Amino acid sequence: MNKIGTYEFIAEPFHCDFSGRMFLGHLGNQMLNAADFHSTDRGFGMKYLMTIQRSWVLSRLAIEMDEMPAQYEHFTIETWVESAMRFFTSRNFCVSDGNGKIYGYCRSIWAMIDTESRQPCDIYSIDNGAIKEWIVDDKPCPVEKGGRVKMEQNAELVKTLDICYNDIDINGHVNSIKYIEHVLDLWDIAWYREHRLKRFEIAYVAEAHQGDQLNFYREQTAENEYCVRLVKTSHESMDAVEVCRCKLLFI
Amino acid sequence: MNKIGTYEFIAEPFHCDFSGRMFLGHLGNQMLNAADFHSTDRGFGMKYLMTIQRSWVLSRLAIEMDEMPAQYEHFTIETWVESAMRFFTSRNFCVSDGNGKIYGYCRSIWAMIDTESRQPCDIYSIDNGAIKEWIVDDKPCPVEKGGRVKMEQNAELVKTLDICYNDIDINGHVNSIKYIEHVLDLWDIAWYREHRLKRFEIAYVAEAHQGDQLNFYREQTAENEYCVRLVKTSHESMDAVEVCRCKLLFI
Repeated sequence: MNKIGTYEFIAEPFHCDFSGRMFLGHLGNQMLNAADFHSTDRGFGMKYLMTIQRSWVLSRLAIEMDEMPAQYEHFTIETWVESAMRFFTSRNFCVSDGNGKIYGYCRSIWAMIDTESRQPCDIYSIDNGAIKEWIVDDKPCPVEKGGRVKMEQNAELVKTLDICYNDIDINGHVNSIKYIEHVLDLWDIAWYREHRLKRFEIAYVAEAHQGDQLNFYREQTAENEYCVRLVKTSHESMDAVEVCRCKLLFI
Repeated sequence: MNKIGTYEFIAEPFHCDFSGRMFLGHLGNQMLNAADFHSTDRGFGMKYLMTIQRSWVLSRLAIEMDEMPAQYEHFTIETWVESAMRFFTSRNFCVSDGNGKIYGYCRSIWAMIDTESRQPCDIYSIDNGAIKEWIVDDKPCPVEKGGRVKMEQNAELVKTLDICYNDIDINGHVNSIKYIEHVLDLWDIAWYREHRLKRFEIAYVAEAHQGDQLNFYREQTAENEYCVRLVKTSHESMDAVEVCRCKLLFI
């Protein structure tokens, strides 16, 4: 079996925004599907991990796109494991039209947790470190790794929303992609008419659940560059806990 | 070509709710995709209609499910045109596992509009009424048609939300499925732990756009039966316009 997984998708009409280009959230979802197909076919997928009380947890995502697939376009996602350490593995993605035209790339970092204790666990312990056999370290992924998103404490609170039924996935917490959608919703269509999202970076810190409120703090860090910090609060408690941080670059 | 279109899908993990069953919104989206595939293959799809300044507009949807596909399950959507009149066509759907097990059915009503004038136009005018050749009137769809959703004027305002970037599709207005998701978000996970949505009915009245606010008025009409009226307002105007009405039956 090839170390690189290649999967075909189509930009469904209702997964495209007002401009007829795919929403980043839906593209991100297809990347997660590609990751799931790739790992399942190679013996370390979610479905198998569930049986041994383990799960992959997405830690970071950095998506950089030159162009988004347009309505009805077929596109290909290639995905491969670039490196695997004891507690983190990095997986890359390349989105193309399958005929040499590259739409963009993505880097992601994953941890493995014990689903009972929610503690990180040793990736090499799965099938005697079999994941090491799947590493591809010579395929280029010409986008910068996600770094630490630095923000000032005085970022402005721009939105608060209640977490709802449709935000929560089978893990019982807010789906990784939903954060991306909620963050992109901080800008309106007038903004997207004038700007294209070039890069979206997100670092996941804690999980949010039904009943929590998400507070969005935004700060402009350069021209067309914004950082957003999501902090959860709950109706029962005054504690504010950081959930994730994002960095967006528009052009 | 068969008059009935049959399409295969998979219940993607991140399209499933906390219980591991597909979200109704994502299932509804796959139904719309099936409708689009079916009509495109038979010469009256959206892509062709766009070239002659026409578009299908969803007018009503009534989905009734005995069970929702579970995570990773393959399922089949069959769709066919049950009848076509000059200004409305009715299209039915059957969701099954492809091996005789039926998950549920759906009835839908569509109008055709001129995309410039936004006025209804004659469905028979397309390709000399070719749609009539695709009618299947003997395949059962054992769910009730959507009726007029009767509501009192004193239904309670339970939520107001701003329409965001991710709500708007390529038509420039709120995507039909997004209304379903927002309405289902009126109930929390504790409710869904105890109740299963048996039937969801929606009648679309007007289009809502970015900048509008959606106001959700809810009324309980019987045990486990609720009606929801969505009314749009805007920051610029005090006019309140009804956008759609829904009826939900839980068991």
